[in-house]
Amino acid sequence: MPLPIPLHCPRCGAAAQDFSGCAACREEGIGANPVPPLADLSGLSLETYPGGPWGWPSALSAPVGEPVTLGEGGTPLVSLPEGGPDGLWVKYEGANPTGSHKDRAMAVGVAAALAAGADTVAAASSGNAGAAVAAYAARAGLRCVVFTTGEVPGPLRAQIDALGAVRVVRDGTAARNAAMREAVERFGWYPLTSYATPAPGGNAYANEGYKSVAYELARDVPGFREGAGAVVVPTCRADLLSGIARGFRELRAAGLVAGVPRLVAAEPAGAAPYTAALALAGRAEQERVSVEPMPSPAFSLGESRPVWQGLDALWGADGSAIAVPTEEFMAEHLALGARGLFLEPSSAVGVAAARRVARERVGGGPVVAIGTATGLKDTASVAGAAAAEERVPELAKLLG
Amino acid sequence: MPLPIPLHCPRCGAAAQDFSGCAACREEGIGANPVPPLADLSGLSLETYPGGPWGWPSALSAPVGEPVTLGEGGTPLVSLPEGGPDGLWVKYEGANPTGSHKDRAMAVGVAAALAAGADTVAAASSGNAGAAVAAYAARAGLRCVVFTTGEVPGPLRAQIDALGAVRVVRDGTAARNAAMREAVERFGWYPLTSYATPAPGGNAYANEGYKSVAYELARDVPGFREGAGAVVVPTCRADLLSGIARGFRELRAAGLVAGVPRLVAAEPAGAAPYTAALALAGRAEQERVSVEPMPSPAFSLGESRPVWQGLDALWGADGSAIAVPTEEFMAEHLALGARGLFLEPSSAVGVAAARRVARERVGGGPVVAIGTATGLKDTASVAGAAAAEERVPELAKLLG
Repeated sequence: MPLPIPLHCPRCGAAAQDFSGCAACREEGIGANPVPPLADLSGLSLETYPGGPWGWPSALSAPVGEPVTLGEGGTPLVSLPEGGPDGLWVKYEGANPTGSHKDRAMAVGVAAALAAGADTVAAASSGNAGAAVAAYAARAGLRCVVFTTGEVPGPLRAQIDALGAVRVVRDGTAARNAAMREAVERFGWYPLTSYATPAPGGNAYANEGYKSVAYELARDVPGFREGAGAVVVPTCRADLLSGIARGFRELRAAGLVAGVPRLVAAEPAGAAPYTAALALAGRAEQERVSVEPMPSPAFSLGESRPVWQGLDALWGADGSAIAVPTEEFMAEHLALGARGLFLEPSSAVGVAAARRVARERVGGGPVVAIGTATGLKDTASVAGAAAAEERVPELAKLLG
Repeated sequence: MPLPIPLHCPRCGAAAQDFSGCAACREEGIGANPVPPLADLSGLSLETYPGGPWGWPSALSAPVGEPVTLGEGGTPLVSLPEGGPDGLWVKYEGANPTGSHKDRAMAVGVAAALAAGADTVAAASSGNAGAAVAAYAARAGLRCVVFTTGEVPGPLRAQIDALGAVRVVRDGTAARNAAMREAVERFGWYPLTSYATPAPGGNAYANEGYKSVAYELARDVPGFREGAGAVVVPTCRADLLSGIARGFRELRAAGLVAGVPRLVAAEPAGAAPYTAALALAGRAEQERVSVEPMPSPAFSLGESRPVWQGLDALWGADGSAIAVPTEEFMAEHLALGARGLFLEPSSAVGVAAARRVARERVGGGPVVAIGTATGLKDTASVAGAAAAEERVPELAKLLG
């Protein structure tokens, strides 16, 4: 069955037959995700853009009918006081319905599944995608199966269960993905995440939802309409990074922004394939880089290979990648809390990298870090702060 | 030191000297909260109201300077498909920065503390208020001390810690409140919650933030501008309920709505003082009712006495109270998950009550339940659903 809106590989141009990534590039050992055409935003106005993936329905290159929505998008842009003259901001995606940016994609992806007549959606995730797909599948009345490993943090596991999804637990990512592949191929379940090896990135229709992050930033961040500044994105399979890049390309093509901000992939130092890639000279080498990922408190991040469209997003936007050591991002996690923002550690990877970008002022302009999810997703990572009596000496005088 | 905007008891008219509730009414054994004058909304337009407590600065009867904000308010209004012809909606306050409605109040309360020159804010809370006050105090650079009991759910405790607040743990609510009172009186800490007995309700300036829920509902719910429908509020010390009532009164006075919706207090059956009060004939009896609260999974709710302004909100809006048994609201908790909404059990108390209101169609019109907080606050309450194989029989065929 042909795909209702054609997907073509941005690397080799081949047409896709399904959502498992580009088969030709996979033969070369490269994960690349075929995409639909960019949308034409001409005639639209950022002033009246209401936010969220459904705010500009014509901007979605996805075969959807009625919106499936829980009120996703339109998230706060929070300034950090120490940002300097050009500003340092966190786009707080934890304010989405299930507490992460994944809601933007899964709203659109589930709507595409519904329009395709699917009865079951499937996702391979040990993180926020599982909760998001569970919520939107429930909203649409579809069955949802989430393929996970044993490493899902407790609160996320409870969230997926409470949203009525069935969790299938496998030992490790490879086994998890294999189970999902089998289910997709045998039962025709509609896949909403990556499940091939090397990982090509998630469902291309779903990913259309991430473009709304770019639209909201262009509308809200002082300087972005002039093409200044940088966006720092915690990156693993780069669905968010490449979606933001697509959104800015559309905005520029329609003349709604004068240029695109620099894009920066932020990674935990123990699993930093984009940083490793960009350290190499030629694109052929960059595409084929591989690292041995180490686990870290940034549980949402950690891949061995870059996905091609992630690299492409960085190549096309004067981009770079920054690997942040665990000690640095966990200190940032604590510092963000002391600023009123409780984010998951993966988000702190992005803010720590953004702080470096702002400090070095490469290119100048405002710097925005995407705060991908709320800290409530994984409370085991909360570190102890200074003792209460040190911070509030009067407490020693309180009776009892 | 006189309060910068005078507070008068809505019950007896006495002027307040501090935030500990009306002293005269307390002598009678009644908890009542002195309030500032209602705001004059004339000249404002709901069409252009941007949402949130800072959306209409002139509507805040609170002595604040610059806004303290993390992007609170403007939360989604999610329709439930089984709502019938007039509609059943959940106002999802879990999308606020710390995941609960308390953010609306604490943003304003911390701004008032800052404007008053306070260096430390204090809150007595074993729930969402503690996380909210911690976040906004951190945002404003103030010290924050949260007086709790041992019954704070784990994720909430971690959230309060991550946001840099100091937790002072006491054995039971009475000891917790006594410690806060002592700290407020000895150290001059700025109190942002109730701490007297009987509980009078929280800081009246902070509570101004809750009026924004009414403004957003009037703007967004079809029929509310005509004065139709009902709002169902999970209620304990009634800060949210009475704040919503004040907001609608202001809207009506300015002609922005033709009437106010009926207000309904939703309570867990084991701790239902408003339901007990409204079952009595005279107001003198209603004001003085007392119940023996039983603990329930709705950890945010559970008082022995109604606060006076909560009763007043119901008296003034053709209101009622509904006590929901644990079995019913935990079934609702599960049903909401199956609709894509993962809320704390206290919110499910509200939705279960709203479902009754919608079913009985008392007065007709749309029914809105306030979904006070995300389910991530207390994941221990997630009940087991039907077995995976029952829900997805194909799983039996999957290898491994």
